[in-house]
Amino acid sequence: MENNNKKWHKISSEMALDEKWFRVRKDVVKLPNGKVMDDYFLWLSGDIAIVVPVTEDNKLILVKQYKYGADKEMIEFPAGFIDNNESSEDAARRELEEETGYVAEKIELLAECEVNATKAIGRGFYYIAKNVKKNGITKQDISEDIETLVLSVEEVIKMIERGEIRTGDSIAAFFLAMKKLNML
Amino acid sequence: MENNNKKWHKISSEMALDEKWFRVRKDVVKLPNGKVMDDYFLWLSGDIAIVVPVTEDNKLILVKQYKYGADKEMIEFPAGFIDNNESSEDAARRELEEETGYVAEKIELLAECEVNATKAIGRGFYYIAKNVKKNGITKQDISEDIETLVLSVEEVIKMIERGEIRTGDSIAAFFLAMKKLNML
Repeated sequence: MENNNKKWHKISSEMALDEKWFRVRKDVVKLPNGKVMDDYFLWLSGDIAIVVPVTEDNKLILVKQYKYGADKEMIEFPAGFIDNNESSEDAARRELEEETGYVAEKIELLAECEVNATKAIGRGFYYIAKNVKKNGITKQDISEDIETLVLSVEEVIKMIERGEIRTGDSIAAFFLAMKKLNML
Repeated sequence: MENNNKKWHKISSEMALDEKWFRVRKDVVKLPNGKVMDDYFLWLSGDIAIVVPVTEDNKLILVKQYKYGADKEMIEFPAGFIDNNESSEDAARRELEEETGYVAEKIELLAECEVNATKAIGRGFYYIAKNVKKNGITKQDISEDIETLVLSVEEVIKMIERGEIRTGDSIAAFFLAMKKLNML
């Protein structure tokens, strides 16, 4: 149950960094105990959709691509930012098709999480896409160079255990999807 | 296997936001295809430790606290930033004790993930703490007002399904811990 006595009150707000690709807000906030914090920074991260694509024969589709923050190739489930005026489900379907060339027959929301409840404003929407099929077309962004992997559930578990899949969102969405399919 | 042909090359780097509580770096980078990006922003998020504490009778210890980014009370596993010159394991033990008053007999690394492989430099270290016991002492930061919850595995699963636990790191660490204990 929500307890409004715990909420912090925003006294004022300004942009600390206002760039197309990264926006940070600086708030002056008052805590319930009366203490005022002058500089609480929040990353306006935007919302993302993450999708666990499952084929008819229970294979999972993942993507492998270099990411500059990690400075390594990452193996993850297809994911990307939700555009303005786009639903999270449409974004999940779009990212799946753009990154892998697979299309989903049925797609279901597994969970809605905060990107970072302490330091960001943004949400991650986890989906499972069932009976995905390859349609052959991918549309990758200019900075994307994406390889598609088709893996069994056991292979994905081994890759998580060996530290080859190292994205919290992907691991969380994977287990939720497996639970939904009674495959745990 | 690492493929060095995929790596982006950093041409130059400067701080775009350099505050005690939030640091963002702006890099000029060259992609393998020769394209130069003038403004790639990375949040220097720092590293965090997250710990799934399990009691002798298989109860799980979680914490409930208001988080300003989400603007709501969050139910999560104990977690916090790893201090300079502190190991991730020491940070996990420290956060557990500070936030809940429980201490761990045995602690084991479950996984090491990127905070955000695309947009940040920082890691999350997921631990399981076994046979945790209450020692009665908590040391909470000034902005923390933390409630401790003692829950069964089934209750945690229900709370995830009902959207009451909505942190990707906590969900990922929970399933990895349950897998480790053969409780899935």
